[in-house]
Amino acid sequence: MSDVRVHNFSISLDGFATGAGQAPDAPFGHAGERLHEWMFATRFWHEMGGGRGGSGGADHAFAAMHGPGIGAEIMGAGKFGPPGWQDDPDYKGAWGANPPFHTPVFVLAHRPRPSIEMEGGTTFHFLDASPAEALKRAREAAGGQDVRLGGGPSVIRDFLTEGLVDHMHVVQVPILLGRGVRLWDGLESLEDAYNIEAVSTPSGVTHLTFTAKSR
Amino acid sequence: MSDVRVHNFSISLDGFATGAGQAPDAPFGHAGERLHEWMFATRFWHEMGGGRGGSGGADHAFAAMHGPGIGAEIMGAGKFGPPGWQDDPDYKGAWGANPPFHTPVFVLAHRPRPSIEMEGGTTFHFLDASPAEALKRAREAAGGQDVRLGGGPSVIRDFLTEGLVDHMHVVQVPILLGRGVRLWDGLESLEDAYNIEAVSTPSGVTHLTFTAKSR
Repeated sequence: MSDVRVHNFSISLDGFATGAGQAPDAPFGHAGERLHEWMFATRFWHEMGGGRGGSGGADHAFAAMHGPGIGAEIMGAGKFGPPGWQDDPDYKGAWGANPPFHTPVFVLAHRPRPSIEMEGGTTFHFLDASPAEALKRAREAAGGQDVRLGGGPSVIRDFLTEGLVDHMHVVQVPILLGRGVRLWDGLESLEDAYNIEAVSTPSGVTHLTFTAKSR
Repeated sequence: MSDVRVHNFSISLDGFATGAGQAPDAPFGHAGERLHEWMFATRFWHEMGGGRGGSGGADHAFAAMHGPGIGAEIMGAGKFGPPGWQDDPDYKGAWGANPPFHTPVFVLAHRPRPSIEMEGGTTFHFLDASPAEALKRAREAAGGQDVRLGGGPSVIRDFLTEGLVDHMHVVQVPILLGRGVRLWDGLESLEDAYNIEAVSTPSGVTHLTFTAKSR
């Protein structure tokens, strides 16, 4: 059975994965880019943009686990676009013509629409489905490879609650956002189901990995 | 000017410093002792109990900063005793005849009572005062030494909000409590006032230190 994996999912010290006030020019609300600066500094990120440079240390090693072995992604409607995108029939996601997924991507949306084939191997499919149903579809599309769960926080919470996540990499950034959407709400005793490791790196972030005990 | 310091203040991954359901036999509610096991394993803790043994590594090094240079402590009513203690005129705190403070201790209580002199140098004083007023009293009693802010979470939050904390050591334990009292609520942008370091240790906890930039 292929794994369900979460990667590079960044939160503040107070647990917010998204700030308040999300908008087209502020996909993370008042958090801005502060949750992801650690990643922008890595070689992984530089090379994903087609360039060179970036740090090659522990932050890079964690970040680079994002791609290998992934055959499909599942994401929430809030990651696909800003509030209101479902009213625009021509909206094609927040990433331009060649999105950085290069696999089928299943977008959980209450109002499904026809699939959209993008450049570079990404095809967006739209599903109004439970986590288990969406995972079944994504696993079929992944051809034996793993399924990445791309967020946002409420989607990850829903999959965790149903015990569907095998590997989760959370990056805790030393800022306090105070408001937004929390990752951790309603996940009491999650540690019973996971082996948890914590590693702080010189950039100041702490990488938390959750490995399912049932794996 | 002497410093105000917080030490060994333990929280869950989801930010709770106290679980739900505090009671005389469960001072941390459903959290039990799980937030403090990292500390019980240290030489600091063993020696505080008059014994020997315990780990001498990073967890001990952090934990042992608790005592030196402290001339007084301020704590909230919820740390002094379980809900209802203010109805018992003979209540003398949760630590027995020789409490582990050995300094004046100022207990923030809405219903002040006469001071209580205990064995070993601890004297409990009871104040209905603002953070700044309580700190003024504690500084006078500390004789030029630092003041420890002992918690609980809402007291620490109140002092942080007023910019009165110079050094804070928070220990993040890899469990999810789901409910209780959070440390971080309402502290947006706290990082603007502090240099923050994170260090994970082999026991699995992550030590976060906050050093006031104004210090």
